[in-house]
Amino acid sequence: MERKHSGNMRNHVQMEQIQIDGMRVEGRNPVLEAFRAGKTIDRLFVQEHLSDGPIRTILREAKKTDAIVQFLPKERLDQMSESGHHQGVIASVAAYEYAEVEDLLAVAAEKNEPPFLILLDEIEDPHNLGAIIRTANLAGAHGVIIPKRRAATLTATAAKASAGAIYHTRVAKVTNLTNTIKELKEQGLWFVCADMNGESMYDLSLTGPIGLVIGNEGSGVSRLVKESCDFCAAIPMRGDIDSLNASVSCGVLAYEIVRQRMMAAK
Amino acid sequence: MERKHSGNMRNHVQMEQIQIDGMRVEGRNPVLEAFRAGKTIDRLFVQEHLSDGPIRTILREAKKTDAIVQFLPKERLDQMSESGHHQGVIASVAAYEYAEVEDLLAVAAEKNEPPFLILLDEIEDPHNLGAIIRTANLAGAHGVIIPKRRAATLTATAAKASAGAIYHTRVAKVTNLTNTIKELKEQGLWFVCADMNGESMYDLSLTGPIGLVIGNEGSGVSRLVKESCDFCAAIPMRGDIDSLNASVSCGVLAYEIVRQRMMAAK
Repeated sequence: MERKHSGNMRNHVQMEQIQIDGMRVEGRNPVLEAFRAGKTIDRLFVQEHLSDGPIRTILREAKKTDAIVQFLPKERLDQMSESGHHQGVIASVAAYEYAEVEDLLAVAAEKNEPPFLILLDEIEDPHNLGAIIRTANLAGAHGVIIPKRRAATLTATAAKASAGAIYHTRVAKVTNLTNTIKELKEQGLWFVCADMNGESMYDLSLTGPIGLVIGNEGSGVSRLVKESCDFCAAIPMRGDIDSLNASVSCGVLAYEIVRQRMMAAK
Repeated sequence: MERKHSGNMRNHVQMEQIQIDGMRVEGRNPVLEAFRAGKTIDRLFVQEHLSDGPIRTILREAKKTDAIVQFLPKERLDQMSESGHHQGVIASVAAYEYAEVEDLLAVAAEKNEPPFLILLDEIEDPHNLGAIIRTANLAGAHGVIIPKRRAATLTATAAKASAGAIYHTRVAKVTNLTNTIKELKEQGLWFVCADMNGESMYDLSLTGPIGLVIGNEGSGVSRLVKESCDFCAAIPMRGDIDSLNASVSCGVLAYEIVRQRMMAAK
């Protein structure tokens, strides 16, 4: 019974991996080629205690990029591997090329609109990331900013959940969200974060150049990021539980911005 | 009320255990016992061409309930089975006991509020169902109505995605959504459906006793259901893609209802 069950699970995992096929590159030459071809590699998984020439070359290439490198036991790589021939390296390739923060501001300038950006403070679920990019697109935001670490990135799952929005709405990946907020404040943006202890979103003025910050699914917006924001906006809560789903929160707040901008334009 | 609630909590604990083996009950005696214990069985899978005594007894029990019965080849049941001993029957057990539509209206009456219900026209993704129940709870809706067929039901996945909201916000399952809408109209409710070709939600008055109808993830609200609604409400779309994620749409529309009710109360 146990055996049968674990057999099913293995099949299940394999099926899941086939679904994200093409987003993974395995083996030394393929991974090195992916780096040299300029592919955006989000994560590089390297087998622990390996330090031969080819591995060192790959690690050198990785250092030139934004790739997060993780060293794992051979067993973990064996588990992750689809081909069974990972040779100690597996790279997770982005479904999409990231933009720079300046590119997002350029979109706003081009449309002659006050910038409206959505910043995600450690959103972990790729379905939420995708749904939020979808919302950003339809709410007329000029782009989405995500942190490099501890956050869902533009994997195939996120791309699918975005329903094609990642091909229209640009996503920038930054090293430090707090620094990015500071830099954008100098360019005239105001920042509002989703926070249930904040002021009711209906009582805030959200019409100017704005950055909307959405926090992690479990823990919300982190302290440092919250302290860099100008306002905390609360969605009125009339129920028993703690919080909305992160992508629903983002939708409700983004559309309050849309509503206020529409009213101001009337 | 207290007793009922603690009963639900006990179910919750049991549910978590069942979740390990997929909220499924397999084999003739376990399935029969589940029916006789009054568990809500959403679906019953029976092996084709079986008609011995125990199977006939199980089918008789199933007929007394809302369970959808599906006859499948032995190979399919073998595939679905986790225990390897399904004996021709597998039942999918709800994580939760459903309410009646009248129960939802009673919640509104008890709170002395105009009814606010959310109706889901064939939402298929249990994550969306869970996120919507979560939204219903926090937006102060008095309950959620789902159809019996072609829709996600209250499985463990939906329960988890609801972040505990299913233990506070009641869900009713109905045979025919159009009939339910007709009956509720006679009780004074107005119905508004999410439809991108409708009138802007900001231009509609959404303050009275209301039912908000959200359509299927791919195809939206079905024709018959749409025709039974009084209004079609559109969320302003300023982007390139077709539609928001269904649970985000529901959140944005539900909170427009909340906003209008708050403004009317001022």
